[in-house]
Amino acid sequence: MMIQILIASLVSPSVVPIASSSPLRPLSSSSPSTSVFSPGITSTAQSLSFGSSGFVNPLVHKRGIQLSARNRKKSMAAQASVQQVDHESTVSEADAGDKSLRIKLRSLRLSELDPSEIRGLQARPRIDFSKIQGIVGPIVEDVRQRGDEAVKEYTSKFDQVKLDTIVELVADLPVPELDPEVKAAFDVAYANIRSFHAAQQKTQSVEVETMPGVRCKRVARAINNVGLYIPGGTAVLPSTALMLAVPAQIAGCKTVVLATPPRPDGSICPEVVYCAKKAGATHILKAGGAQAVAAMAWGTESCPKVDKILGPGNQYVTAAKMLLQNSEAMVSIDMPAGPSEVLVIADKYASPVHVAADLLSQAEHGPDSQVVLVAVGDDVDVEAIEAEVERQCNALPRGSIASKAIENSFTLIVSTKAEACAFSNLYAPEHLIVNVENAASWLDSLDNAGSVFLGRWTPESVGDYASGTNHVLPTYGYARMYGGVSLDSFVKYMTVQTLTSEGLQALGPSVVKMAIVEGLDAHARAVTLRLKDLKGSK
Amino acid sequence: MMIQILIASLVSPSVVPIASSSPLRPLSSSSPSTSVFSPGITSTAQSLSFGSSGFVNPLVHKRGIQLSARNRKKSMAAQASVQQVDHESTVSEADAGDKSLRIKLRSLRLSELDPSEIRGLQARPRIDFSKIQGIVGPIVEDVRQRGDEAVKEYTSKFDQVKLDTIVELVADLPVPELDPEVKAAFDVAYANIRSFHAAQQKTQSVEVETMPGVRCKRVARAINNVGLYIPGGTAVLPSTALMLAVPAQIAGCKTVVLATPPRPDGSICPEVVYCAKKAGATHILKAGGAQAVAAMAWGTESCPKVDKILGPGNQYVTAAKMLLQNSEAMVSIDMPAGPSEVLVIADKYASPVHVAADLLSQAEHGPDSQVVLVAVGDDVDVEAIEAEVERQCNALPRGSIASKAIENSFTLIVSTKAEACAFSNLYAPEHLIVNVENAASWLDSLDNAGSVFLGRWTPESVGDYASGTNHVLPTYGYARMYGGVSLDSFVKYMTVQTLTSEGLQALGPSVVKMAIVEGLDAHARAVTLRLKDLKGSK
Repeated sequence: MMIQILIASLVSPSVVPIASSSPLRPLSSSSPSTSVFSPGITSTAQSLSFGSSGFVNPLVHKRGIQLSARNRKKSMAAQASVQQVDHESTVSEADAGDKSLRIKLRSLRLSELDPSEIRGLQARPRIDFSKIQGIVGPIVEDVRQRGDEAVKEYTSKFDQVKLDTIVELVADLPVPELDPEVKAAFDVAYANIRSFHAAQQKTQSVEVETMPGVRCKRVARAINNVGLYIPGGTAVLPSTALMLAVPAQIAGCKTVVLATPPRPDGSICPEVVYCAKKAGATHILKAGGAQAVAAMAWGTESCPKVDKILGPGNQYVTAAKMLLQNSEAMVSIDMPAGPSEVLVIADKYASPVHVAADLLSQAEHGPDSQVVLVAVGDDVDVEAIEAEVERQCNALPRGSIASKAIENSFTLIVSTKAEACAFSNLYAPEHLIVNVENAASWLDSLDNAGSVFLGRWTPESVGDYASGTNHVLPTYGYARMYGGVSLDSFVKYMTVQTLTSEGLQALGPSVVKMAIVEGLDAHARAVTLRLKDLKGSK
Repeated sequence: MMIQILIASLVSPSVVPIASSSPLRPLSSSSPSTSVFSPGITSTAQSLSFGSSGFVNPLVHKRGIQLSARNRKKSMAAQASVQQVDHESTVSEADAGDKSLRIKLRSLRLSELDPSEIRGLQARPRIDFSKIQGIVGPIVEDVRQRGDEAVKEYTSKFDQVKLDTIVELVADLPVPELDPEVKAAFDVAYANIRSFHAAQQKTQSVEVETMPGVRCKRVARAINNVGLYIPGGTAVLPSTALMLAVPAQIAGCKTVVLATPPRPDGSICPEVVYCAKKAGATHILKAGGAQAVAAMAWGTESCPKVDKILGPGNQYVTAAKMLLQNSEAMVSIDMPAGPSEVLVIADKYASPVHVAADLLSQAEHGPDSQVVLVAVGDDVDVEAIEAEVERQCNALPRGSIASKAIENSFTLIVSTKAEACAFSNLYAPEHLIVNVENAASWLDSLDNAGSVFLGRWTPESVGDYASGTNHVLPTYGYARMYGGVSLDSFVKYMTVQTLTSEGLQALGPSVVKMAIVEGLDAHARAVTLRLKDLKGSK
């Protein structure tokens, strides 16, 4: 099954459409039915396909809601508006004026689905990365070859900004003047993020005497040089700067390069500068997209080479990170990334107003955001939630974006807690809101999620900004095997062993036996030659 | 600079030459001057190149020792013998009879090197993965399409074994009868590995009240389905089975697929079965190479699909892992891998016999093993160490393999502890032996290494088998950003937050402020709508 979607080629691998500029939306993969890419800055159009290798959710397309002719038109208008928003990276006032969108979540009942349909619900649409890598690969290689010059050219081409210097030393930048209330808010976020990530330090050291005279331990060491990608364009994402730079600061990373696209006048968003200074970043690379990732991975004349690259980004950023982790650049990455997503589990005690607000706070990230509601029990007033979604969505400046995301999303009605947890674990959401009575008791049944929000007073937004947990989280189902960014993302562990002569005498014979089984004589002799010395010295 | 090396194409992506079958030698990347691949099972030859993108250490080739005409001949004989050994995966007796190899480490003095030469010493030769992926890609795709049938065909082609069933349930296999002393040795290893990895559990839980009413914690959850690659062919590597299955058992992984190539009669090495049963693996996939990795990544009719693949392997295994981590298979891997390596720091108190034995225990892994000696101070008797290397090497069954590795290796003479640590940190070795007086005091100065062995009674072999630490470790300089396999490799962390109404009232206004700065109104409203309810209820 090949679904062709037209995207703007070289749609500015660095200009991040607002739809994909959120900290919570690392990869702006278009869903098949929408294009979030602005054609405005396109010179040639490229066709990306969801080939046989792409995950396509048949249910979503098969059962997609049928818009009436009137709504179809509205939808197209909304989409055009989305494109305009993307292009301008600002909220379109024209769009905000149109308040008559009909927005409805599809409702499915678990008991009516067969196993393959249930499996289908967990699948997210995927971009064929080999195609995107065909675009990104030459940029990455060009930056490797030509360094700063190449970065400047791409910044001029994609961000329409000409820069003389692309790297600023953070220490040289003056502290920007911010609105005092904004400054205070970021200070609260900094303190809480620092508190939670610093607490992770206590877990790093392990020491065990596995046998008398055989001591094993592990010790944490900072990754010396890290690169932090902060999506930008004209959008401001200082919260992501905090989420990445604070743990780097606690870990003790020596070089912390923060990459973010410059604003049209070549400057850096003052809130980002404020957070970078506060959290001890050392360099700011004024570049975005694949070229920024490549500059950090290879190093250029002015940009230090880093050992690891972390942070969300659009599909070009993600593709560059994935390409580089398999290259000779000797660089690792935090995780692969996809569009942001939330799964809300709600029972009859959850306020429909709160549930709708949480669904929309995810949906406003972009048309390809994934929003899932799992209603536990027939007594959940799904219609009230749906009505609230529609009412609140129409009142949002980014309502047209949110409405597109809602179209691709669904409500699943289940009967029991066990069913709800099983589906959530299957789906493995980035964000999981458990808005039920006695939510804490659900935690033991949940095992695949990036970050969990328990109870009625814990909206996802608090974790996005300031509760203390990290908002750089696994998407696309990768919560099955990845955790979010944490202090551990900025360190590596060395194991250390020390044997006394008694320890070697006790353990050595077992080692010799196993080395001989595996045919490795020199391994055995490294032990026996020492044991001989010990015997001789007695 | 293009250095062409001829390797056997499709050299049996699953038959692991003995040189690459060690647990400590995940990737059998040929160094430019040697071929470890047996032509015996080759139908067509392929040329792999170290292109401009490969890391080539100019110093190694420029300053490579000049063999006399006589020794050149010996060397060729040795290499032919290596190939025979590779092919047969047994030690060649014919070769063991030749005891006259001249073996000498190159000696370099740090003070005589310029910065680019020092940088050159840290570089390892690299394989161009895009070429290898050209071989591996079609195998991976074929297994995805045709499942078990494809795996059987590749096993028949590369391992010359025809199998009816490729997956065994471990519970159905009888406990193999082992030599009691061998069994006891593996039991000791199991106990120590379990002890050290179980101790890592205590570090997993973190809970902090970042503000009054704002509780954040992280919890560990097992990765449900894991695939463990145990290199094999006719070699036996039960130690790797323990290193991977024991932490999976402690983590509580539900499905643990252990993949290893079958022996010529289609059976599995009894020591591997013993370890698999003891450590709770659930399935054994009787396949190796890219086809085994692909079967676990995609799942087949008989092989469960896994979420993460761990373990060492030859270059095809590594290439398949790297390719799949960037694919739609939704699978992660432990780390990229290269040939095994050791760096030994020795002072005048270190026994030349021990130092030589440790160097050789690494060198015997394969001709492309990396062996580095850092001698601290002019009073280290480097000549005595060299003489011991030559003497011991000539007495080893795998001496010809070790001698090839030694040829590519070097001694670096430095003046101070600081210089020694700086070079070691630059090199970032997989294994670091610190054989100096008061070794424990060196640890704080060391920050890039996979596993560290402190003091004279701690040969690397103890960590390879039984001290308790893991032997699946980062190579190639990846110790700068990766740690070895640990309990953490088998879990992911979820963050969890719970706010009370007071917590939300305290934190909410800051969240709203930041959401508005970032232009995300629905994020703000998810908070304000709740705060309104709280106000209303007062």
